[in-house]
Amino acid sequence: MTTHHFVATSFHNVIGTMPAALRVLSGDTVITRTIDAAGYDEEDVRRASGPNPMNGPVFVEGAVSGDALKVEILDMVPTRDTGFTRSVLAANVIDPETIRELPKPDKTLWAIDRQAMTVRLTEPVSGIENLVLPLAPMIGCFGVAPSLGQAISTATSGEHGGNMDYRLFGPGTTVWLPVFSPGALFFLGDCHAVQGDGEIVGTGVETTFEVTVRLTVEKAKPMTWPRAETADDIITVGNARPLDQALQHATTEMLRLLTTDYRLTWVAASHLLGQVVRYDIGNVYDPAYTVACRVAKKWLPRL
Amino acid sequence: MTTHHFVATSFHNVIGTMPAALRVLSGDTVITRTIDAAGYDEEDVRRASGPNPMNGPVFVEGAVSGDALKVEILDMVPTRDTGFTRSVLAANVIDPETIRELPKPDKTLWAIDRQAMTVRLTEPVSGIENLVLPLAPMIGCFGVAPSLGQAISTATSGEHGGNMDYRLFGPGTTVWLPVFSPGALFFLGDCHAVQGDGEIVGTGVETTFEVTVRLTVEKAKPMTWPRAETADDIITVGNARPLDQALQHATTEMLRLLTTDYRLTWVAASHLLGQVVRYDIGNVYDPAYTVACRVAKKWLPRL
Amino acid sequence: MTTHHFVATSFHNVIGTMPAALRVLSGDTVITRTIDAAGYDEEDVRRASGPNPMNGPVFVEGAVSGDALKVEILDMVPTRDTGFTRSVLAANVIDPETIRELPKPDKTLWAIDRQAMTVRLTEPVSGIENLVLPLAPMIGCFGVAPSLGQAISTATSGEHGGNMDYRLFGPGTTVWLPVFSPGALFFLGDCHAVQGDGEIVGTGVETTFEVTVRLTVEKAKPMTWPRAETADDIITVGNARPLDQALQHATTEMLRLLTTDYRLTWVAASHLLGQVVRYDIGNVYDPAYTVACRVAKKWLPRL
Amino acid sequence: MTTHHFVATSFHNVIGTMPAALRVLSGDTVITRTIDAAGYDEEDVRRASGPNPMNGPVFVEGAVSGDALKVEILDMVPTRDTGFTRSVLAANVIDPETIRELPKPDKTLWAIDRQAMTVRLTEPVSGIENLVLPLAPMIGCFGVAPSLGQAISTATSGEHGGNMDYRLFGPGTTVWLPVFSPGALFFLGDCHAVQGDGEIVGTGVETTFEVTVRLTVEKAKPMTWPRAETADDIITVGNARPLDQALQHATTEMLRLLTTDYRLTWVAASHLLGQVVRYDIGNVYDPAYTVACRVAKKWLPRL
Repeated sequence: MTTHHFVATSFHNVIGTMPAALRVLSGDTVITRTIDAAGYDEEDVRRASGPNPMNGPVFVEGAVSGDALKVEILDMVPTRDTGFTRSVLAANVIDPETIRELPKPDKTLWAIDRQAMTVRLTEPVSGIENLVLPLAPMIGCFGVAPSLGQAISTATSGEHGGNMDYRLFGPGTTVWLPVFSPGALFFLGDCHAVQGDGEIVGTGVETTFEVTVRLTVEKAKPMTWPRAETADDIITVGNARPLDQALQHATTEMLRLLTTDYRLTWVAASHLLGQVVRYDIGNVYDPAYTVACRVAKKWLPRL
Repeated sequence: MTTHHFVATSFHNVIGTMPAALRVLSGDTVITRTIDAAGYDEEDVRRASGPNPMNGPVFVEGAVSGDALKVEILDMVPTRDTGFTRSVLAANVIDPETIRELPKPDKTLWAIDRQAMTVRLTEPVSGIENLVLPLAPMIGCFGVAPSLGQAISTATSGEHGGNMDYRLFGPGTTVWLPVFSPGALFFLGDCHAVQGDGEIVGTGVETTFEVTVRLTVEKAKPMTWPRAETADDIITVGNARPLDQALQHATTEMLRLLTTDYRLTWVAASHLLGQVVRYDIGNVYDPAYTVACRVAKKWLPRL
Repeated sequence: MTTHHFVATSFHNVIGTMPAALRVLSGDTVITRTIDAAGYDEEDVRRASGPNPMNGPVFVEGAVSGDALKVEILDMVPTRDTGFTRSVLAANVIDPETIRELPKPDKTLWAIDRQAMTVRLTEPVSGIENLVLPLAPMIGCFGVAPSLGQAISTATSGEHGGNMDYRLFGPGTTVWLPVFSPGALFFLGDCHAVQGDGEIVGTGVETTFEVTVRLTVEKAKPMTWPRAETADDIITVGNARPLDQALQHATTEMLRLLTTDYRLTWVAASHLLGQVVRYDIGNVYDPAYTVACRVAKKWLPRL
Repeated sequence: MTTHHFVATSFHNVIGTMPAALRVLSGDTVITRTIDAAGYDEEDVRRASGPNPMNGPVFVEGAVSGDALKVEILDMVPTRDTGFTRSVLAANVIDPETIRELPKPDKTLWAIDRQAMTVRLTEPVSGIENLVLPLAPMIGCFGVAPSLGQAISTATSGEHGGNMDYRLFGPGTTVWLPVFSPGALFFLGDCHAVQGDGEIVGTGVETTFEVTVRLTVEKAKPMTWPRAETADDIITVGNARPLDQALQHATTEMLRLLTTDYRLTWVAASHLLGQVVRYDIGNVYDPAYTVACRVAKKWLPRL
């Protein structure tokens, strides 16, 4: 197993089939420095334009359509002392009749304390002067080349992953993505120092990171939507609008997972999910929204 | 402050304006035994038909339109050794094309161990033979008479509360409901021994409880949607379809709460919510779905 | 068959079970003068408050749960020279990010020429000075007492009818509503001189009419959603949010109608609908939206 | 102005930036023979796989981002005596609980009479033996390369056009598409002999056509969503889920069109749309749904 220090020299606003920027073997580790959602790097130099410029693609030898790409998020180290957010809730997350009452959003700066591992507003804002949040790194956007040779904007998401903005996609989490193209073609970027559910101001605290992932091909693993695992939970993710449909996708994928990997019948899986399922909301800002279906491992049958 | 032992003799499938079954003073406590969602009591005798027959209404002296009714859920003691669920996921929570693969739902029995405070299937089901869940009591359906003299089915929910099926509406939680009618007219029932997010089999573990609530009028407290507080969090709730709209209602109500009770500006409230908000999904089975917007108290300004 | 001149003396903002204002026999005709959506009568005297005050209920002898009430809209004669609209598109029908660009809505007056049977703005508006629309009367809100003893706001709609705001619910159209309560308990009001699809400014041209309807009980006619017939078409109507669900309800009801009344198989009904169905959009402003599923009679099998 | 007889030799399942198959000047006419949605040509030889293989792209000289591509659909001549449909309504257009009652869909053959210009089932189906529909040709899927270098599946739609399945996109209609890439890169295919609203069996009568379009660049014409014009109407189109959002996009685009091209104020445009707008439903089967916002030209100001 090799560790690759991958220095991205060009960045992509779509996730699609294109020449590899790096080729790795299954099981290799990739360390790469991401730029922020607006294209600024750790020195605050603009390297690309938005939305969500990606490092990649990484071609993983041996991956073919029908396989899964296992992505272990091993580490995320912040590389800059600042991040930015938008200052006002997105128009689509509040009642339409109340939108006129809100000011237009500005860009707001946050200070990232890389010793204390905390985040706070650079300029104090009345009422929340003391708001100091623990750093909670996550990868906002990552995925593999989609089906049919599609190339999909990093402003949205789909079966291939993409801009899911889900809080649990951080260090310690392992994600599986369905492979559609030779080499899988993995992209990542748009990392956040912290973010609430839904990314409801249209951003997390957008900044730059050094990200370490291990990429492994799992052969012939049929799946439709991204799957994940943390220390405590198994997770499936649906990306669509409205949230109702994202929830349907995530729940259907969890049913498939429970009936194949855990050999439960439809009824057993229904009993389990009915009484223990947890839903999390990823992105509710982009064209496609994200819902995660989560089940604590402690309730699963021993295999 | 008086404690009323309220024995319901008739039950209601709508929440609306009707003669009071009990009159109490603001601050009084009510202890009452509920029947299950299908109308069976603690002796398994059918006392009413579904959906979700309610105890009530309780007329709280002094409550008028524009006030809020504060409902402290003080205690929930299970009163029966069995509960029931449906055995298959509801058709609306999975992808439409996959519904044909699922069997039709049956009614399934669960055993409630009132000593151990646990819940398990009465008949073992292969793969989940060892599933023993801690009792996690919650009130599935409660609310006050809605606006305009409406009477709304207990199978759905709205600004007045109703069938929200939200896990955190259990002992230790305080809920505020907007008052529309003289006396508020409070109803409750449909209690669950445990339930996953969304009530996605169409039921929690449906059973009977002795419920203790304290009802207090808060004068002239304008609010549109239910609000709540737990030891850790403040919460607002939206009820609508699709989930997107329920989320808009809940988020808008939280904005109102933060800008009035906590005196934050729109921008300060947006900064806070953007980075710390949590969304929970209540019911995704009924005509109206439920989304809760939740903020940890530790992030709120000291008042 | 009797013709009743029904003078409403009180008006209702909910459709529900309440004492009859008029009792008629099945097949009788009712002529009644409606007030406008804001509660003003033909003399511009305020007689009730909004939303959509209803004349009724009319108790139709012999109607019981499981029957259908056939409502023939025989005539609608305008009784006032003015109507009103809101002046700006509703916030929920445009992209959320663009709402801030629109002014807040005012109330705008329209002149109704009862000789020429036309409608125009009272004050000329630049660019549309010459807009003169033919009178196209329709009943915005009508229905029967809903199931379970519910009483539902006239600002919304459901299986019982209600505020559907569908252009084709005018003279010459026959509507069938499912009966839930003894006597059906029919209500009507909120008539429009003209209205575009969706009622997207939140109003049609709201005014007063003398409406003539014939009410007939059809025994044991199972149906879930309103059905209708014009000279050219058969129609089913679904009321829900999002539009997707309203469309599902309307399409499912049309499938039921084709497979029962026209004895088509599911496949024959699918072939027919697949190639000839038309969808119309009723209300897209209220809590529940309205979609009509329409099939031209010329394509139907002869019975 | 040149007329190009364009013989497609390869076909595309995405609409995206790729090498031109044909280069034309603005104002040129293109005549091309399309294959059906499943990839079969006029001789019933499989030439490509689905979904919706496209002819193209056609590079139109002079088109750059910010321009519009005007597409005049001049003629559509059927080139085969058969078409096919699916035999059962799509699962997503009926109530989820009723899906289990429907059989699984088969492929059904239709006969196209190119003399009589009619369409009928090849095998008679009981109850609709006499169903003979007039040929009503339309282009199901067409568009230009999307923004950001995206390549989007022909199974869906977006700002760039795509699989909109709108009945009025047939001969005599002119469509404007926003240009994102040099040369616009125009694709078309997936033609239907006839189709009901919504393409609710998942297909129209899928067959092959010789299509004639004239392609003209209109410089610096800002627009977000497709626009169109027929003899009687101006039209804007929104593509998204749920239908509510597609309707928002279409309505917002119509507002822009009325306030720029027809110089109406927001209020004048609102008055007009509020009382005369018509909504049509294109596709309700694909990942993105299609809603058309339509205004009769007779109500528009003279320019």
